Amino acid sequence: MDPWRTGITDSDETNIFIHGYDVTSLMRQATFTDTIFLLHQGRLPSKEERALFDAILIGVSDHGPAAPSAAAARIVASGNRRSLESAVAAGVLAMGDAHGGAACDCMQMITDGVARAQRESISLQDVAIRTAADAKSERRRLPGMGHRVHTDDPRTRVLFEMARTCGVAGDGVAFMQAMEEAARLQIRPLPVNIDGALSAILYDLGFLPPVGKLIFIIGRVAGVTAQVMEEHKREKPMRVRIPVVYDGPPPREIK
Amino acid sequence: MDPWRTGITDSDETNIFIHGYDVTSLMRQATFTDTIFLLHQGRLPSKEERALFDAILIGVSDHGPAAPSAAAARIVASGNRRSLESAVAAGVLAMGDAHGGAACDCMQMITDGVARAQRESISLQDVAIRTAADAKSERRRLPGMGHRVHTDDPRTRVLFEMARTCGVAGDGVAFMQAMEEAARLQIRPLPVNIDGALSAILYDLGFLPPVGKLIFIIGRVAGVTAQVMEEHKREKPMRVRIPVVYDGPPPREIK
Amino acid sequence: MDPWRTGITDSDETNIFIHGYDVTSLMRQATFTDTIFLLHQGRLPSKEERALFDAILIGVSDHGPAAPSAAAARIVASGNRRSLESAVAAGVLAMGDAHGGAACDCMQMITDGVARAQRESISLQDVAIRTAADAKSERRRLPGMGHRVHTDDPRTRVLFEMARTCGVAGDGVAFMQAMEEAARLQIRPLPVNIDGALSAILYDLGFLPPVGKLIFIIGRVAGVTAQVMEEHKREKPMRVRIPVVYDGPPPREIK
Amino acid sequence: MDPWRTGITDSDETNIFIHGYDVTSLMRQATFTDTIFLLHQGRLPSKEERALFDAILIGVSDHGPAAPSAAAARIVASGNRRSLESAVAAGVLAMGDAHGGAACDCMQMITDGVARAQRESISLQDVAIRTAADAKSERRRLPGMGHRVHTDDPRTRVLFEMARTCGVAGDGVAFMQAMEEAARLQIRPLPVNIDGALSAILYDLGFLPPVGKLIFIIGRVAGVTAQVMEEHKREKPMRVRIPVVYDGPPPREIK
Repeated sequence: MDPWRTGITDSDETNIFIHGYDVTSLMRQATFTDTIFLLHQGRLPSKEERALFDAILIGVSDHGPAAPSAAAARIVASGNRRSLESAVAAGVLAMGDAHGGAACDCMQMITDGVARAQRESISLQDVAIRTAADAKSERRRLPGMGHRVHTDDPRTRVLFEMARTCGVAGDGVAFMQAMEEAARLQIRPLPVNIDGALSAILYDLGFLPPVGKLIFIIGRVAGVTAQVMEEHKREKPMRVRIPVVYDGPPPREIK
Repeated sequence: MDPWRTGITDSDETNIFIHGYDVTSLMRQATFTDTIFLLHQGRLPSKEERALFDAILIGVSDHGPAAPSAAAARIVASGNRRSLESAVAAGVLAMGDAHGGAACDCMQMITDGVARAQRESISLQDVAIRTAADAKSERRRLPGMGHRVHTDDPRTRVLFEMARTCGVAGDGVAFMQAMEEAARLQIRPLPVNIDGALSAILYDLGFLPPVGKLIFIIGRVAGVTAQVMEEHKREKPMRVRIPVVYDGPPPREIK
Repeated sequence: MDPWRTGITDSDETNIFIHGYDVTSLMRQATFTDTIFLLHQGRLPSKEERALFDAILIGVSDHGPAAPSAAAARIVASGNRRSLESAVAAGVLAMGDAHGGAACDCMQMITDGVARAQRESISLQDVAIRTAADAKSERRRLPGMGHRVHTDDPRTRVLFEMARTCGVAGDGVAFMQAMEEAARLQIRPLPVNIDGALSAILYDLGFLPPVGKLIFIIGRVAGVTAQVMEEHKREKPMRVRIPVVYDGPPPREIK
Repeated sequence: MDPWRTGITDSDETNIFIHGYDVTSLMRQATFTDTIFLLHQGRLPSKEERALFDAILIGVSDHGPAAPSAAAARIVASGNRRSLESAVAAGVLAMGDAHGGAACDCMQMITDGVARAQRESISLQDVAIRTAADAKSERRRLPGMGHRVHTDDPRTRVLFEMARTCGVAGDGVAFMQAMEEAARLQIRPLPVNIDGALSAILYDLGFLPPVGKLIFIIGRVAGVTAQVMEEHKREKPMRVRIPVVYDGPPPREIK
């Protein structure tokens, strides 16, 4: 079998190097957040980038036991008391397109929008107006925008404020704010939500779209593991009793 | 890298052989149940063994959307609309010790019990009495025995009846029936449940204990996949709203 | 919480009914393959349909330890000796678009092709010619067609022959055979492979496209479980040693 | 259905509180590592505790593509190009008893050892001698101790040194160092490895044994996600070709 190629982590008998940095140096001088950034970007973040990246990871870390990731993890933990990793993995699997997956779609929308502005020599505002109009006519939802309740998400406000203060805010943040304005004028108020805010900033930090979802997973695993431990400490096995109503065919005989 | 050894399935450029049988011959002349048996036992079952094995797989195939395997799969399907395999895998992960895992523990109890009867030259009835007494004094639950409602499981009755009719019933069935009698006398009525019944029969069919759980998984995957499809066809994304009550610390400031 | 609706499986204190059939009647009179069909179609198959469905499930049940599903399951089994369900779930997760997922895409191509023939009142052959031409000009691969080695898959031959003998072959089989002819004339010989053959037949049996992948999963889980058991019985923990070559940055200091 | 109880995370229409702290305050003032600690301990760490916790998470974050977690994730990524979460989940599932699971077993050994010292009023050194002697006579491996190559793991040295400098080192570190000495005298040199070192420190930080494995998972998910992205960016679908040798029965006919 051909050896597998990698540019991420090297090791010899005694040492491990991540993108060239001895892991023991990182342990002494860096934070876990630095290391997550390094693993995905191949370089250590600046102090400002680290603060923003920390804020993103914290912002998605937990949303209580009713989020699909936590609920799936708890139900598995309830039927499977011996394998903690099974419960955590089930939580990861719930992070699909409808839960946590908006980040990937939103980063793609930003990537396409910024590329279009450059290609067609128009402003991000103009691209945003056309993107919102297209979504409206095709009845598509705009990823990273809108809430169940029509208010601002305070996490979005904090992220955008920090991004501006740090000097990280660039085309990503500008485009999402243009999208918010375009949606308000053409569709209805659709405030940028946490998925949209972290997508804008991850774009400005240089990440590729699929990494949006991976960062969501890294952050949320912190919460899912805590939910699994609480299930084990506080609850009995098989305690979940979901009410069911059957509306299929009545009893019948095999002919 | 050394090649991986296997005695199960071989293939050349055009043909696939399972334990030596050309897969196209199996497709023409065998059933899926035969093939599951073959993959795990290295031989095709007799007509009687196949009928029993079919009955076991059917008996565990589905128990509605509230079983942990189906509930976990549906919650993942609800947050993850694009990856059916993620939802099915979450259902598999819920089949731990507390849900579907009794088969492995029960087959181990049977294996130990029959071995002890031979080693100590005592009857299976005597071993059963001691096993029940030990469980009582150590406050351990007996795997494969007992129901939430104190009645017989009709699936157990069918399996034991088929096993006797087919001539497959051996030490496994005899030991579990001795356990039922021993529990009734020393603890309380603990009828053999579906996990206990299939464990007894899988033991008599020559399977090793861990295979008990794997057979449960194979059977239940049929139901989990159907539950996942129904979730996608009938329900909206993110539709599950589990009620939550928070009883942790009140709002506080970072010091 | 609103109760979850289901039309698949009902149960009271003592009985379980699948689409209205008492599970104990199924255990006595039906096969596991009948039950898989019932769970997904809401009716029991005819004798001919059952034979074909058995052949499909057998045809995909195993392809040795090097298939991604088996390889992923074995590597997990190698690092995780206590949780069999974790290894099986990893095998399920490997069944994505590139491995086992062609069935879903191919059933969609058939569904679209047959609908187009009806809508435009043209023959399936004409639709096939246009579909192949479109794929060629857009440089898209045709799902369910082509082999690494340019020969027929004997499993395809058996499935198509059985489908014709049983009287099940309909538009699905006809369209895939027209596609084979169209590809041969316009692109290059791309024989219908096992994914294409089972897609054609599942279409003719009345299944929806996503079920194509679910049937692949049900069949392959039989093989994955056997591969996991063999890993546990024959191999040591952590035995897999994949050769790696690092081509990233050389050792460097944190600045 | 009864509501699910939780003491971890609360939310109203607009705000999220983790153990009482508004998540936007954490985003502004805390690190991701603080938040992981908070989610699992119910309090924020001191500066010293945070530094140690960062070092642990970094120390386990990646070990290249050949570690079972990364290898399983890459094989799934290779067959499943559309579902990143499936690949990450497979990586999580590989973290069983033999890979990453030593932390849980080792934390249990420390917990039992310290409890025994208090109960029997003997020193940690005496308990370590008895623990090593028992393991030797029962031919059990000591969790968290020993390497494939008989040298010190530099990550262990760094962790123990930081723990002492920070004033966090307590009974956990003392007991593992006593175990190293006891093993050297009675068995053979078995240096404390990274799993043993992080177990000692997590014990001294007040974590329960199962959390040892969960912390390993949180740290390693950072590496697994990076490995999955590299697989997608650099490699083709289905590129893994594991060599296989078949040693089962020769071709035979169905009788």
